[in-house]
Amino acid sequence: MTATAQHVIDELTQAVPADALITDPASMDAYRWDRALDPRAGVPLAVVRPQSTEQVQETVRIAARNGVAIVPRGAGSGLSGGSSAVEGALVISLDRMRAIEVDAATRMATVQPGAFNAEVKQAAAAHGLWYPPDPSSFEFCSIGGNVATNAGGLCCVKYGVTTDYVLGMTVVLADGRAVTLGGPRLKDVAGLSLAKLFVGSEGTLGIITEVVLRLVPAQRQPSTLVATFPTLTGATDAVLTITRTMRPSMLEFMDRPTINAVEDETRMGLDREAAAMLIVQSDESSDTARDEIARIEEICEEFGATECYATDDPDESEAFVVARRMAIPAVEKKGTLLLEDVGVPLPRLGDLVAGIAEISATRDVPIAVVAHAGDGNTHPLLVFDPNDLEQKARAEIAYGEVMDLAISLGGTITGEHGIGRLKQPWLSSYLGSDVLELNLRIKNALDPQNIFNPGAVFGVMTGASS
Amino acid sequence: MTATAQHVIDELTQAVPADALITDPASMDAYRWDRALDPRAGVPLAVVRPQSTEQVQETVRIAARNGVAIVPRGAGSGLSGGSSAVEGALVISLDRMRAIEVDAATRMATVQPGAFNAEVKQAAAAHGLWYPPDPSSFEFCSIGGNVATNAGGLCCVKYGVTTDYVLGMTVVLADGRAVTLGGPRLKDVAGLSLAKLFVGSEGTLGIITEVVLRLVPAQRQPSTLVATFPTLTGATDAVLTITRTMRPSMLEFMDRPTINAVEDETRMGLDREAAAMLIVQSDESSDTARDEIARIEEICEEFGATECYATDDPDESEAFVVARRMAIPAVEKKGTLLLEDVGVPLPRLGDLVAGIAEISATRDVPIAVVAHAGDGNTHPLLVFDPNDLEQKARAEIAYGEVMDLAISLGGTITGEHGIGRLKQPWLSSYLGSDVLELNLRIKNALDPQNIFNPGAVFGVMTGASS
Repeated sequence: MTATAQHVIDELTQAVPADALITDPASMDAYRWDRALDPRAGVPLAVVRPQSTEQVQETVRIAARNGVAIVPRGAGSGLSGGSSAVEGALVISLDRMRAIEVDAATRMATVQPGAFNAEVKQAAAAHGLWYPPDPSSFEFCSIGGNVATNAGGLCCVKYGVTTDYVLGMTVVLADGRAVTLGGPRLKDVAGLSLAKLFVGSEGTLGIITEVVLRLVPAQRQPSTLVATFPTLTGATDAVLTITRTMRPSMLEFMDRPTINAVEDETRMGLDREAAAMLIVQSDESSDTARDEIARIEEICEEFGATECYATDDPDESEAFVVARRMAIPAVEKKGTLLLEDVGVPLPRLGDLVAGIAEISATRDVPIAVVAHAGDGNTHPLLVFDPNDLEQKARAEIAYGEVMDLAISLGGTITGEHGIGRLKQPWLSSYLGSDVLELNLRIKNALDPQNIFNPGAVFGVMTGASS
Repeated sequence: MTATAQHVIDELTQAVPADALITDPASMDAYRWDRALDPRAGVPLAVVRPQSTEQVQETVRIAARNGVAIVPRGAGSGLSGGSSAVEGALVISLDRMRAIEVDAATRMATVQPGAFNAEVKQAAAAHGLWYPPDPSSFEFCSIGGNVATNAGGLCCVKYGVTTDYVLGMTVVLADGRAVTLGGPRLKDVAGLSLAKLFVGSEGTLGIITEVVLRLVPAQRQPSTLVATFPTLTGATDAVLTITRTMRPSMLEFMDRPTINAVEDETRMGLDREAAAMLIVQSDESSDTARDEIARIEEICEEFGATECYATDDPDESEAFVVARRMAIPAVEKKGTLLLEDVGVPLPRLGDLVAGIAEISATRDVPIAVVAHAGDGNTHPLLVFDPNDLEQKARAEIAYGEVMDLAISLGGTITGEHGIGRLKQPWLSSYLGSDVLELNLRIKNALDPQNIFNPGAVFGVMTGASS
């Protein structure tokens, strides 16, 4: 261990309680990877598990003084390697900061970053309220991570993404100062919209230690429609027609490989021959919801749906939603995954899905597509045999080709997972050099030493040692 | 005219069409003030009325090369002096860039900044779609100004503010480069959320030359309730109880001076003796809306409402909304106005309204309060006789006291109008020095010469000559 490293450990030992500091390499392993399982993840110098904003500040000050990098970390459920540990850095894990306070009178929740999304939903529900954003991982992802990636989910098609619910936050800056941006006010335009800037910044600008979230009254029990299509085009055309005039509260898509992977797990009787399946919900009040679902059913039939099944039964509805949420783990059983998150303007959804099928055929790599179709946000899942190095190489090529395809269709390389480290090499071709430079100017203005999450989003820049 | 000034005029004459350049002082008068009528507004060197992003770029490049400040301007309907002209600066008026393109398939509109809010609403309506944000000035305010101030309105209580509808934009930066941030994608987390940063930046970071707006399906015809209260507390307590469990699509408040000013104009039979009046709408589907309005009526009665009147009739509903929108012009007939825009967390609304009444009594300055009550966002209107210099001085003191009161209640000094130049002296005590410094770091990173709207938001800083 270098003298600096030892000095940092000594300072941390003074600054935070003993149970907040991990330096044993074996114990640190639990904090080195997120779900991207980046093989390049380094061994951190230490893991700090603060229990207060003040402890985060102390840790950041020590890191800044010594020029040591920091990787902030929530629940480690990220899919883009945004919290892969950096060699020699400090990992600040927010997993012990989990307080949730709901104020029913203002319909707001003040939440520490380590609280799980599901815990916030539960705390809100206890007051008859609802926190809408619902990543598929909602049972094991943290609010801090959701804010850091501006996470989406299934309800976004009607209810928007995380940023739409963030009213304020406390952030620890690169010099250890803590600032409060925004707060429990529904409208506030005094000064720049800095809270919104930190949403989606993936730990590169500061460490969020508290967020103020807007809650809404509880959602009505939705009506559900499941429709299967013999062609991909039929399904994507139906999506486009539905969203033209209606705002379903869920509009999800699964292609044949996904349907089959889910059916393998659930044996719930999904149509294995279907090219695609849509799962649609309406949460309007009961008669209106039934009308809306009936209109959507007509549209699906018009575009060739072979089977439509509508239900108002909560358990039956939930079973279909669970099936959809199970898509990624179900496909994961077929091999190792490379997980995409590409999104396109809705009219290009059909082109995207068709183009992905072509890439899959050309590269001989199975690609299962599951999508938040109503948002144009898709998750192509590239499946390969980790022991087949040649297929692995082809999968990696296909992974880039899917992103290039999305860009060529006016789309984005990440709709809700973030750039992290995995998609970093594609950021510049997506943003272009001018917008990238603008990003870097903000990054440099707020973190001139580059101590926050180096290598994530912006790639390796000069700055803190790591 | 200095040599630099003449040189700038010569360069502009070369760079933009003759009809895009105004240098005659009398003709420039129409571009010196917004509705704040700031007496300190300067005489600009020239007014440029570009018709394209390229012409904006050319103008910015000339200004940057010569160190001349720029004041961007939309429709001039701002209430905070954000587009008051600066002596010797260039005013860039976007009033000729008004194109609107609606894409019904993606439910989005691509709009140039000079288009009026009402024109965007109309263009959307032609496709059965709706652009929700609705400042009271929607018939004569521009989308560029709406984005620059993150404007709100009456529907925000359910539908959010301008930033919730901004998906992307084209911005001309301080060095004349044009960049596109975000775009027609419902979810996009690649890189920092720069589009959201420019929303509400009041022309201090760049000039917005195009925005991509999200549209939603047309609003249902709302049901309306008007309730009058013998006490202010009854009305504000009712607001708090309503918003706890429901999301009305409008929840507006007028106090007695406002009711009387509006009644003077409309003679529609409002109760001049009432302490306060609420105007509430529900746009749920018909039966649900009627149920919601009935529950709200019960709540109002529980808190002492003396009269409740509910209607489903579109014309009658609209008459009440028009009465509400008329509040500011109606009170304006009573004297010169100092217009506030303070907001508080909802449980403090009663304290704010009571505190304002106290300030009004102490300073002997009539203050009429109209409020987007469901957002906690109020517009106290301070009325004074412009010829009574002593009252004018007292009104100016009261103006500051209302903002201080809002801050002391955990509120903001501006919910939807912006800081501009009028509220600039209060920004620092609202934000605190750390957050202000963070704002300035961003400002300096994007506009190091301080050529964009100097004096607005951040006050006078070193930078471009003006």
